[in-house]
Amino acid sequence: MKRLLVIAAVAALSLTAMAQELNNFSFGRQAPVISPEIQGDSVTFRLKADYATVVKLSGSWMPNPYGGTIDMVRGENNVWSVKIALPAPEIYTYNFVVDGVAVNDPQNIYVQRDGTRYLPMLIVPGERTENYGEATQHGTVSHPWYDSKLLGYSRRLTVYTPYGYEANPKKKYPVLYLLHGAGGDEEAWISMGRTAQILDNLIEKGLAEPMIVVMPNGNPGQQAARTLGIPEKQMNWRAPEFQNVYVRSLCEEIVPFIEKNFRAIAKPASRAIAGLSMGGGHTISASILYPEMFDYICPLSAAGQASAEQIAALKKAGVKLYFLACGDADFLFQGSQQLDKTLTEQGLDHVYFVSDGGHTWSNWRLYLNTFAPKLFK
Amino acid sequence: MKRLLVIAAVAALSLTAMAQELNNFSFGRQAPVISPEIQGDSVTFRLKADYATVVKLSGSWMPNPYGGTIDMVRGENNVWSVKIALPAPEIYTYNFVVDGVAVNDPQNIYVQRDGTRYLPMLIVPGERTENYGEATQHGTVSHPWYDSKLLGYSRRLTVYTPYGYEANPKKKYPVLYLLHGAGGDEEAWISMGRTAQILDNLIEKGLAEPMIVVMPNGNPGQQAARTLGIPEKQMNWRAPEFQNVYVRSLCEEIVPFIEKNFRAIAKPASRAIAGLSMGGGHTISASILYPEMFDYICPLSAAGQASAEQIAALKKAGVKLYFLACGDADFLFQGSQQLDKTLTEQGLDHVYFVSDGGHTWSNWRLYLNTFAPKLFK
Repeated sequence: MKRLLVIAAVAALSLTAMAQELNNFSFGRQAPVISPEIQGDSVTFRLKADYATVVKLSGSWMPNPYGGTIDMVRGENNVWSVKIALPAPEIYTYNFVVDGVAVNDPQNIYVQRDGTRYLPMLIVPGERTENYGEATQHGTVSHPWYDSKLLGYSRRLTVYTPYGYEANPKKKYPVLYLLHGAGGDEEAWISMGRTAQILDNLIEKGLAEPMIVVMPNGNPGQQAARTLGIPEKQMNWRAPEFQNVYVRSLCEEIVPFIEKNFRAIAKPASRAIAGLSMGGGHTISASILYPEMFDYICPLSAAGQASAEQIAALKKAGVKLYFLACGDADFLFQGSQQLDKTLTEQGLDHVYFVSDGGHTWSNWRLYLNTFAPKLFK
Repeated sequence: MKRLLVIAAVAALSLTAMAQELNNFSFGRQAPVISPEIQGDSVTFRLKADYATVVKLSGSWMPNPYGGTIDMVRGENNVWSVKIALPAPEIYTYNFVVDGVAVNDPQNIYVQRDGTRYLPMLIVPGERTENYGEATQHGTVSHPWYDSKLLGYSRRLTVYTPYGYEANPKKKYPVLYLLHGAGGDEEAWISMGRTAQILDNLIEKGLAEPMIVVMPNGNPGQQAARTLGIPEKQMNWRAPEFQNVYVRSLCEEIVPFIEKNFRAIAKPASRAIAGLSMGGGHTISASILYPEMFDYICPLSAAGQASAEQIAALKKAGVKLYFLACGDADFLFQGSQQLDKTLTEQGLDHVYFVSDGGHTWSNWRLYLNTFAPKLFK
């Protein structure tokens, strides 16, 4: 240590090179603008916009998030702002509309990606969101690629391994396969679904078993999320030879890949499958095509159906949990009610979890937080 | 298969739920706007902005990227556009300026994160960028957390393992420790540096040895990138007890963590260290404090110095490659010239790689692409 030359001065010099690419014209040399700012039961949004004529706010908590906006008011230094009542605890997304153009909040570094869109988040603390923030102990998120012979290329997965996985090299873990909806990809459950945070918190609190969570890409034409720039394979995925091709790849390729390359317990009692919307359809298909593979089956906001014979196969296989969830305002609610009815009629013990609201990530986070503690017990 | 009920119709219904959170006001129901569009030796940028008064384009290829802009012109359907000569092959970033507010391109899903800013990329194909796109075979990118006793908490790493790592469970690999600059974090080399793509391509072409690449977070107050929302630890990191604390954590905690949890060859001849700017300072510090740890040392765009005694220790340790790189317009260029001179005077065989340009990711991608093939050979 004593022999060190003083290089601190040089390191300090390098600090001036923080913004390497572009200047941000909207907040170059001004006093800091804080946005969003939660104070008590209100939240204030701010945007510096020197030459704008009309600035509005749009948020997913609004009654009409697909069109409603709130006007913002120009203040000192051309900082536009609006203060609103804090919505109920949840993770919301929002954006500004500057002279008709959607603009993200440059002050907010908490951003979700929904398909091709990046959106700032408003995280309102409370009981509903207590497992959505960072826990003390963190699992590892990785992106391995599996070779799919059925689809003809390698495909990217997201895999969560729980805290302690590295430190306990002889321990084996159960696995949850967690499937996204149409428009999503292998990062959807991580980015919008807060899967790593929810599992970290549930496991740290002793509420859920330490488990591996595998999040594949459910679009067979995609090797990976479109953000990676790999061209999509254009095929008629509805053609007979492709029937259930993704579900077959999941059960015949991804499950073996995971059980070979991760310390997974390769037994039905240690395999769960869950999915939202299109992924709920995949979940139901997998339970029908491979009734002996998963002892835990959780279709979320989905409306696939199953026949008496198919349900009998699940009963025979000894399914331990069938967790069906849907929002009462979901456009698929009737279908989920029908599946609940059929499961009851056919005598398959199951949970039918009905929540407020519709086809939203608010519900899917709630469902994961609700069913994960019921797995592998 | 024959027993399946038809659930395709239900899955198709779910497709309508693609945009779950918000409508984008600027391109809700219009014909698709394409941006950026490369045609021959030109590129056109477009933005629909119905009510804007002035729309400009700012790009990192411009002579004055910290303030220069080009005016865009309003066209049919209020689509503003500008067509410019295609800049030389490289990855650039850009944004629009709508009535004074910086706006990302909603049509462009290729986005980099630079610190707290998300910026659309313009990727110009050519020889310079041929290793920056996706290869056929992909390594795995993961985010494990290591427990730092020196810093008092667990911290997030980014780790790249090469294609074949999973399929060859007995093979061990050399490791490159790759350090970011001030303002960066453990995702900087992945997002802006294209490390996974560059290594995938170099390895696939047989130009570089298959290697593990470890990208830590060089800010001791951060457990992880600020985007995760974990509050920074506020300490006087310049206090004597914290001198070189990150470099000590790297060499005394991260290197052992990697060599325990990954199939790494735990020998100096299989360890390389490289870093840009502040990370170049860390690289030089590590080589001075731990002269026998790394046989490959690559300070990039940095200006740390070393004494005769320190250089003698590296010679004695048998360093195999000392690769010093800097842009001739870099504000640290003089410092790098001084270090080159000292290394020459002290008789340490080294490469002094001088490129055009300054303190930019354009150079850091070039340097990685240049020195990675020289490692572990």
